[in-house]
Amino acid sequence: MVNKLRKIGFSKLTSLEDALEKLFSQIPLNPIEEIDVRKSINRVLACDIVCDIDLPPFDRSAMDGFAIKAEDSFNASPKTPKKIKLVGTIEIGESSNLKLNKGEGIKISTGAPIPEGADAVIKIEDSEIKEKSINIYVSLPPGKNISKKGEDIKKGTPVLSKGTDLKAEHIALLASLGFNKIEVRTKPKISIFSSGDELLEPGEALQPGRIYNSNTPMISALVNLYGGTVIRGETVKDDKDAIKNRLLEAAGNSQVIIFTGGTSVGTKDYLPEIINESGMVLTHGIAMRPGAPVLIGFVENVLIFCLPGTPVAAYVSFLKITGPAIRKILGCSVLDPRVEILATIKSDVPVSGLGFLHYLRVKVEKKENIFLAVPVKLKGSGVISSLTSSDGIIEILPHQEGLKKGDFVLVKLHPE
Amino acid sequence: MVNKLRKIGFSKLTSLEDALEKLFSQIPLNPIEEIDVRKSINRVLACDIVCDIDLPPFDRSAMDGFAIKAEDSFNASPKTPKKIKLVGTIEIGESSNLKLNKGEGIKISTGAPIPEGADAVIKIEDSEIKEKSINIYVSLPPGKNISKKGEDIKKGTPVLSKGTDLKAEHIALLASLGFNKIEVRTKPKISIFSSGDELLEPGEALQPGRIYNSNTPMISALVNLYGGTVIRGETVKDDKDAIKNRLLEAAGNSQVIIFTGGTSVGTKDYLPEIINESGMVLTHGIAMRPGAPVLIGFVENVLIFCLPGTPVAAYVSFLKITGPAIRKILGCSVLDPRVEILATIKSDVPVSGLGFLHYLRVKVEKKENIFLAVPVKLKGSGVISSLTSSDGIIEILPHQEGLKKGDFVLVKLHPE
Repeated sequence: MVNKLRKIGFSKLTSLEDALEKLFSQIPLNPIEEIDVRKSINRVLACDIVCDIDLPPFDRSAMDGFAIKAEDSFNASPKTPKKIKLVGTIEIGESSNLKLNKGEGIKISTGAPIPEGADAVIKIEDSEIKEKSINIYVSLPPGKNISKKGEDIKKGTPVLSKGTDLKAEHIALLASLGFNKIEVRTKPKISIFSSGDELLEPGEALQPGRIYNSNTPMISALVNLYGGTVIRGETVKDDKDAIKNRLLEAAGNSQVIIFTGGTSVGTKDYLPEIINESGMVLTHGIAMRPGAPVLIGFVENVLIFCLPGTPVAAYVSFLKITGPAIRKILGCSVLDPRVEILATIKSDVPVSGLGFLHYLRVKVEKKENIFLAVPVKLKGSGVISSLTSSDGIIEILPHQEGLKKGDFVLVKLHPE
Repeated sequence: MVNKLRKIGFSKLTSLEDALEKLFSQIPLNPIEEIDVRKSINRVLACDIVCDIDLPPFDRSAMDGFAIKAEDSFNASPKTPKKIKLVGTIEIGESSNLKLNKGEGIKISTGAPIPEGADAVIKIEDSEIKEKSINIYVSLPPGKNISKKGEDIKKGTPVLSKGTDLKAEHIALLASLGFNKIEVRTKPKISIFSSGDELLEPGEALQPGRIYNSNTPMISALVNLYGGTVIRGETVKDDKDAIKNRLLEAAGNSQVIIFTGGTSVGTKDYLPEIINESGMVLTHGIAMRPGAPVLIGFVENVLIFCLPGTPVAAYVSFLKITGPAIRKILGCSVLDPRVEILATIKSDVPVSGLGFLHYLRVKVEKKENIFLAVPVKLKGSGVISSLTSSDGIIEILPHQEGLKKGDFVLVKLHPE
């Protein structure tokens, strides 16, 4: 381990687990705001929801047909129909005072309230109407074709927990319970900077020795996906004063500041120094690959993440550290929202650095009743095409010497 | 089958496959617009992307260290170091005219361009600087610690295909290639109506015989997720003229109109009639459960979907029919974007209607090296809680008599 440490230039590396524990213990929840349920997609519920009505709110018909007393249908068959009297109609949405007596039937639509006295609904197809009487061709048990009040959800039942990511189906549930407003946590405001003298903005002409900045657009997309609001996204020159000024300026109106680049131990890696001077370094150097140079700190209560400048390392460390921190601020109950699938690995994967978490990009192929995880050819942590040509990432634990062909692995799919 | 048809009141049911084939053959692609790459998250690429630069654009250093001629390091070891002369520095982002000769070294940062004449980089940790000379402690092969021009992606390589859903990693790739604008298909404008006299808006006081409208909020959320723009979302009374007026009005500025409710064969199900009068019914009645009453049609070139009023049926038929149609308009290469996972089913699932596709809501549990799909207790297609308490949906094919405990199944996870 000592040798490894020397090689990457850090005096000490923290395990990811310890770094996250320390980080999460210092993250306060954002305040609550009330928003329109219809605009709550992808927001995070801030309170538990208890059903305060019965669902359905009344006994209702599950079919188009006739509300009857089940006993009036007993022993009915196509050959021996029972005859009852049609005494009225109840339409959907109606609150009816109609009362049903023995020997009577009331025409009823799917979803309409069951009249007092009725305990079953005979379907149109199982009956026949002749002037003012109804022929019943099927014998029904009591309760048949009736959705009972509270059958779906009883009043008082807890239905959603705080910390839930609101999707279409949760919005439907909240709406069906009559909610038009809902409490969620406010979105954290986030500034993003990429530092590097080599960086050009997309759209500029390519110059010798320069490359295009892809980290700001990528991290911005990820921040949005993880529930933050990007208020600023820029590149900064590798100049200590320039970086410090931007940092302090952004600290004035951001809750989180994300840097990519300038966080390692090269001559122009000023960020560790700046954060030490202006605030506090919580962790610098994490035993993960890619992602080792990550720095986590605070400046004036603003959370600072310095991610590596190489795009894949920035991507992986966002997914493992910054993204979960944003979701912690939002009160999410699941901090890593990625979908996991089980697969078997298609080939041996040796790893060289024991003591490090390793993140392996894989493509997922379906073969009959199994998913195969196929390692994507790796050329370095700068290669963005290894992300676009992969479906997800496998974590290899620090004590694992690698993976053997056929091993079961959990693939965390790239977030969508 | 005849008996089944009679029971649900349709004279003829179409297979989902046939309905989709007919539908998709009539859907034109939306026009192309050019947008900022940074705002392209979740949009759909409208053209193939070929890399028109080499990535990296120049030979660059993969380490902080010294650019050297590899031959100057041959046979070097900590005990037998080789000594060369320090002749300059190349910073990152610099375009340098420095030329390296045998016996010389140039200080170089990660990402900086390799000077002419150099063919390897010795890491800082494997060397030592003494005034104007460098001690080399390791023997390097030519090419060591150099990322060659075009190593990640060669100029002219196809990198992304039209129809790709743009995620963070695609945005990073496009930015790294210098793109600031990108071609995508315009989003279809979509109007949503829920019909039913029983419907109350969330926030209103509950009244006898009435229920809250959950379909408009749910379908709106799904439309956004699938790439459409909701321009209108309302409830309509079960009144033929009212429904017809809204439909014709919305047809003036929508590309797609979605109704929920009013599409079956009850007395107040006016939609089939209205669409027959004002346009063309493509399909009415599909052999799927839930979802059988779905109607697909056109009014003045506007695509009309009438989905069932029961929320789960509306949800499932959106995922299987309306959602893929929206993605067809957008030119997506994958029409159903849901993530699939393999699981084994935890208990027998009998199905009653052969000839129908059946959709089963399941919860997914991880057990050691397997995912278990646990059927969610079903009470009917109106029960929204069966969606919020499930993770995905299994499709049971028309010829399958059901599932046996332990069968392998594909679970399509609810879209996020």
